[in-house]
This record gives sequence, C-alpha cells and structure tokens, in this order.
Amino acid sequence: MTETDQKQHVVIIGAGFAGVQVARGLGAAGVRTTLLDRQNYHLFQPLLYQVATAALSPADIAQPVRRMLRRFASIEVLLAEVTGIDVDRRCVTLADGKSLSYDILVLAAGATHAYFGHDEWAEFAPSLKSIADARRVRSRLLLSFEQAEMSDDAAERKRLMTFVVVGGGPSGVELAGAIAELARHTLAKDFHRIDAKSASVLLLEAGPRILTAFPEELARYAKRKLKTLGVTVRENCPVKHISRDSVVAGDDTMPIGVAIWVAGVKASSAGELLGVPTDKSGRVRVNRDLSVPGLSDVYALGDVALVLDTAGKPMPGLAQVAKQEGYYLGRALVRKMRTGAAAPDFKFHNRGNAAIVGRQSAIFDFGWSRLKGVLAWFLWALVHIYLLAGFQHRVLVALQWLWRYVTYDHGARLIVEPERGAACGGLPDGK
Amino acid sequence: MTETDQKQHVVIIGAGFAGVQVARGLGAAGVRTTLLDRQNYHLFQPLLYQVATAALSPADIAQPVRRMLRRFASIEVLLAEVTGIDVDRRCVTLADGKSLSYDILVLAAGATHAYFGHDEWAEFAPSLKSIADARRVRSRLLLSFEQAEMSDDAAERKRLMTFVVVGGGPSGVELAGAIAELARHTLAKDFHRIDAKSASVLLLEAGPRILTAFPEELARYAKRKLKTLGVTVRENCPVKHISRDSVVAGDDTMPIGVAIWVAGVKASSAGELLGVPTDKSGRVRVNRDLSVPGLSDVYALGDVALVLDTAGKPMPGLAQVAKQEGYYLGRALVRKMRTGAAAPDFKFHNRGNAAIVGRQSAIFDFGWSRLKGVLAWFLWALVHIYLLAGFQHRVLVALQWLWRYVTYDHGARLIVEPERGAACGGLPDGK
Repeated sequence: MTETDQKQHVVIIGAGFAGVQVARGLGAAGVRTTLLDRQNYHLFQPLLYQVATAALSPADIAQPVRRMLRRFASIEVLLAEVTGIDVDRRCVTLADGKSLSYDILVLAAGATHAYFGHDEWAEFAPSLKSIADARRVRSRLLLSFEQAEMSDDAAERKRLMTFVVVGGGPSGVELAGAIAELARHTLAKDFHRIDAKSASVLLLEAGPRILTAFPEELARYAKRKLKTLGVTVRENCPVKHISRDSVVAGDDTMPIGVAIWVAGVKASSAGELLGVPTDKSGRVRVNRDLSVPGLSDVYALGDVALVLDTAGKPMPGLAQVAKQEGYYLGRALVRKMRTGAAAPDFKFHNRGNAAIVGRQSAIFDFGWSRLKGVLAWFLWALVHIYLLAGFQHRVLVALQWLWRYVTYDHGARLIVEPERGAACGGLPDGK
Repeated sequence: MTETDQKQHVVIIGAGFAGVQVARGLGAAGVRTTLLDRQNYHLFQPLLYQVATAALSPADIAQPVRRMLRRFASIEVLLAEVTGIDVDRRCVTLADGKSLSYDILVLAAGATHAYFGHDEWAEFAPSLKSIADARRVRSRLLLSFEQAEMSDDAAERKRLMTFVVVGGGPSGVELAGAIAELARHTLAKDFHRIDAKSASVLLLEAGPRILTAFPEELARYAKRKLKTLGVTVRENCPVKHISRDSVVAGDDTMPIGVAIWVAGVKASSAGELLGVPTDKSGRVRVNRDLSVPGLSDVYALGDVALVLDTAGKPMPGLAQVAKQEGYYLGRALVRKMRTGAAAPDFKFHNRGNAAIVGRQSAIFDFGWSRLKGVLAWFLWALVHIYLLAGFQHRVLVALQWLWRYVTYDHGARLIVEPERGAACGGLPDGK
C-alpha cells in the first residue's frame, strides 16, 4: 500500500453488482472508499421473480452490504440517498443535507423500469426491480386467487385468474413461467372451489418476437416450452392501456386479475445529476475505460452506463456485465493510483446468457455455442447454487432453495400488502 | 361419518393455534367447516421476536392456512374480516358486505397488545403481534445503528444505540436478550465507526419483578443472565410517557433510539360483537366446556376467551393452552354431533412453560419440576425443531434455523420500512 492510496477518497454510488465489485477491488488495496446506497442490502436481482412467485423469501436473495464488505477496513458503507453532484467542487449532496467530498466518483446506481410516458400504469401493473415490488406482486397474485375462491360469478372468477406479464425479455419469460407453475403445481390442491390450474397466464411482447437478445432458435424453443406450461405468448402485441381490471393490447381488451410490467428499463438519474449526455433510456455515455467524457475522475458502469463493445454495440444490462465492469474498474483505479498508468480498455467476456422457462427447462447462449432443455436447466441450477452459496456463505441455504424450487414447495406464500394491522384472527382489533 | 355431520356448518373465526386445531378435529370427521381469518397464513407467534431481530424470515414462521388444511375436503378457508355477529339469525357479517350463516360458531380470534389508554404510544413503541410489527421493529433496530454510524454527535450516537423493551414477560425477556445479542455478536464487526457492542438494552417492568408467571427462582436466574448479556433490567419502573426519541419511566427521562411495547394484551373485539360480558382485557367468559354462557352453539377459546382452571385461576395466554383447547373443542363438537352427548370439561395439561434468555440459556417450568441453563435451552431447541419441522414439513429448514441462530449468522437484516421505491442504487429514480 502506498501513501497515495490513503489520500485518495473514492465515493461509489450504488451497491448493486457493479458497485460492490468496484468496492472489493479498492478495499483489497486499502484505498479509502465510501459506498453508499439507499438500501442497506445488496440484492441478487436475477432471482427476484422467485420472490414474486413465493419460492424464495426476500432475505434469501438480499444480503446486508456491511456484512459483505466488513473485512475491508478502508471501506465505509453509508445508507444514504444522493440528491446532487457537484463535479467542480468534487462533492456529493445527500438527502439529509450533508455533503461528501470525493477525489474519484464512481456511479453504479443501476436502473429501474420505464413505463414509456405512462407512469399512471405503475399503480395497476407494478414492476419487478426491488424487494417491495416483489412483495407487492406476490401479494397481488395470491390475493387474486383468494378473491376468485370467494366469488360466485364465473366471469369474475375468470378475470381474477387471468395474469398478464408485459414484456417478453428474460424477466418476462421467467416470471410468466413461474406464475403458471405456481398456479398449476403449488396452489393446485389448496383451493376447493376454484381450479387453480385453469388460471390464464399471458405474456405480451410489443415486438415481433420474445427474447430478442437470444438467437431465434432458442426463443422458439422457449415459446414452445411456455405453451406447454400453459402460458399464452402474444407477439406484435403492444399494450395501449392498463387499468385496475383490464389491459388493452393489440385489438383486445382483456379483463385481468393482475398485471406485471417488465417491458422497459431506464437508468437512474445519474446522467441528470452529472449534467452529461445520455442515451434515450438515460444511460451515461462512457469511454472504453468507463470514465465519463469531459469530466475528470468520474466513472460510470453497470446499468447506469452506456458501454459500447468493440463492434460498437451497447453492452446488455446483465449482472455478469456489471460484475465484470466492476472488477475491471476496481483494478484499473488501483493501478492508476499506484503507477499513474491507465488500464487497457474494458473487455467483456461472455459467460453465457441464460433464461429459465419453468423447471427443468432453460436456454443458454454462450455466443460460440447454445444449449437448451434439461441440461441447460441443470447448468443454470449449478451456477446459481454456486452464486447464491458464495453470496450468502451458506451452501445449505442454496441447496434448500433448489430443493424447494424443484419440489414446488413454495413456503413464502404470505399476503402482507396492504398491511392488515395486528394478527387478531378474523376480527377487527378490540377497542 | 353420519348424515348429521354433513348438515351442521361450523364457522371458526381465527386461524391461530386454537382455530387451526379445532378445524383439524372437525376436518378429520368430515364436518362442514369454514375457517376464516384476515390473514392468509397461520403464524407461529412464539418465534416472532426472532423475525424482529433478523434471525428468521417471516416465511420461516408463517404457513398458508390453505396449505395446512388442504387434505380436509370438508374445510373451506376464507380470507375475510368479520364485522358483525348476529347470534339470533346465526350469521356472521363480513367486511365485503356478504354474510355467512352457521350452526355452530367458534371464536378463536386471538389477542393484540394493549397500550392501557395510551394508543398514541403505538407509533413510537410498536408492538410485536404480527409480521408487519416484526418487520417494523427489525427495520427500526437496524436503521438506528445505521443512523448512529452516520452521526458525528456523541450524545446522539448514544441515544440511537439505546433500545427499550417495555414489559417484563417472556416476550420482553426474549426480545431484550435477542437485541443484546444482535448488537454484541451479529452486528459487532459490521460497523467501523461505532462500537455496536456498546449499545444499551433496557427492559422495563412496571411490577415488582419480571416473569411473574414463573417461579421466583427462575426469574432471578433470567435476570442474572440478562445482565451478563448486557441488558439492564428495571423493575418497579412503570412507563409514564413515550415519544419519538425518549421514554419517561420511573423518575427518569431516557433518550432512546427504538422502543418496543410488549407490556399488555387485550382480546380481539369478539366480546363486543357478541354482546357478552368480558373481563377487563376483553376476554369472553366461557364455561368449562368452552361454550359462551347464555348463547347456544357459540364457543370461544384461545386468547379471546377467559377459561378458568379447576382452582378458579385464568388460563395463561400461551400457544400450548390454545392448542389444547382447540384439540379438545374439535373432538367435543364431533362427539356432540354424533352422539348428542356433552364432553367432559376441558382440562389443561401443562407441558412446561419456557422462556429463552439468549443462546444456550433458558428457563423451563413444568409445575412439578424446574429447569434452567444450557439443558433447558437444549430442550427448548429440540421442542422447537420438532414444532417447526412439523409446521413446515421440513426438517432441513428447522435445522438450518437452529444453525443460523446458534452461529449468530442473522441473514434477514433488511431495512424495508419505510419503502424506498425501486432499487436504483443511491440515487433518486430518473425521470
């Protein structure tokens, strides 16, 4: 460790895959670092759909940031929200009025879902980016079955058991498959009046096909598998309106019980706060070394950044991209501090892009090779046991998760939103 | 199964220990039964303090009521809230305006905490009766440490790291011990500025001693153990006022970070709805066969009922009492339907009353014998593995729970209240 390392203060905004990875690189070299996030936990977002469908509890896929980084004495973790960035004075303003000065600023604040100018749809079709979102979706799905069980009107029952997922990317495919399995397997025996298996799950995609990031062959396979699970896939079917109990898409008005929106992504407000140019989804354009053009010592990565690959194509918003960028930037910053030398440009190594289409069925695209079916699913499960076990330091939990997932024994079927006060049986609280 | 069984319709209000147990007895005999509750899950309340202190996730101690009873074809489970009971017309009014007629009514709606005329304290000192309560307490505890870490003012840090538990019953003892261990073990290494071990935990009891339901010898032991854990026990110390950042108790005004109220219990509004006499905590007075005097075919049990033992003393509000009453009433009702004969009076068999005072230390009172220390703790752990495994049908989960609990590896350290919108790193969402 050189003296220089100690003098430089790096502030990282966002404790997602990218931010945590940068912090690890800096922490290992003893660089004074502050990592701040609005949440006290790091979220394993790729499995959020399993919380939404009651297969996992929130704590299974979220870990306190402090805990993850506690071995690094030079890292401070702050629970805070950034409200302004002053690049001239090199400081960041926080929501509580305090400010934090930096020598180097790293933006890794991630992305949220975009409703394309229809923010009013958010109320009726929540998205799936946070634990609060996942809980909301879980409660709505389960509550819709409960209401169907209590209804005497056949049309109303049909409506309540119709679930629409908007957006045919990997999240949409995984979510639609998981909802179908929740209805067909987990809940099938629990209801006596309704037949949970008769629930309709619709996956709506505005474009000509689902899974555009995957080769057409794999997308076709996924579509066929979704059909087997009972999911109706509609392509070329842009959504025109969403209300509490219906979705208008293509030429149809569909009465629905629950809608979920996983159709569009926009970056967090980092670009606005920096006052730098962004692309149409709000991503900050960065150089190939992840630095922000025109600013000194400001970097952006992960979902908040627009990083172009060697062919000039934007990197996709994937966990592995964010992690690799974080790993790269952590090392590059340390190198620069120590030797003054700039690192060679960031280069992405594709570890394979996967999507799950129900149990025992997945697609994997490695670029140079493709895989589908049970073998792909098995590979996916192995990779996720490895990732979750490393994440939580608990192999047992990861194995138990797999067991619950394979056996359809969804334990987390709690309706907790809206909150219902104290647990006083079926009665209002006494006075 | 006789024809009579099919004709009688039993409505049970409340899916706690008592209600579920009655339903099982009726379901096994094929009696037409409707079990309704405001929640879709049955809650293992005795372990709620472990959710509040981040050792367990809500789904670890809650199970969907439908799932628990799905093997009984004659039982219907309804997610509903009761707003009125008409004993003359034998029907129950629900919050959605519908009504439900019954031949036999079973009230098992439980209890909630009482603030003794100071409901305004609830905002500053939440109670611990529901999952929402436990999440609220968990978030407040963790947030208080986070705020202390960010504060530059020594007095403010001390305030934020002072935790007050009001009420010296088993819940208060277990909660205070668990908070002390959270600070001293789980969080100790996570913070770099503050010393989490220096947190103060106060247990306030208005009466002359804690654990009045236990023999004095065991209470003395618990008090000594709490002191070792770092909990300050104050007896004869009634609370006079609670605000956001202070508690006035005895002659002291104490600046506090978080207060939790486990001091008093009142029954749900069953007595009011029935229009029958209750004791001062709202419990319905019942006969020794759990029937409500003056009403025909109406029964009350569990925390909503005042059941006297042979010595004329009220039964305590314990899970084992509620379960035994439920077991008794289910069989008694079936017997009465089949043979017309009344069952002999309910008789409670004490299985031992336990309280945990931190890891490796508990007290057990069997009436005829007493146990304290490691052996008592071990017995408690065995009993709870058995109960949780039966509850969730998953030995693995129960074992894993024990492992996490023993190793202080509290995984569920999520601050999720107040909700913080989408997971967009440290930044407000983009526009």
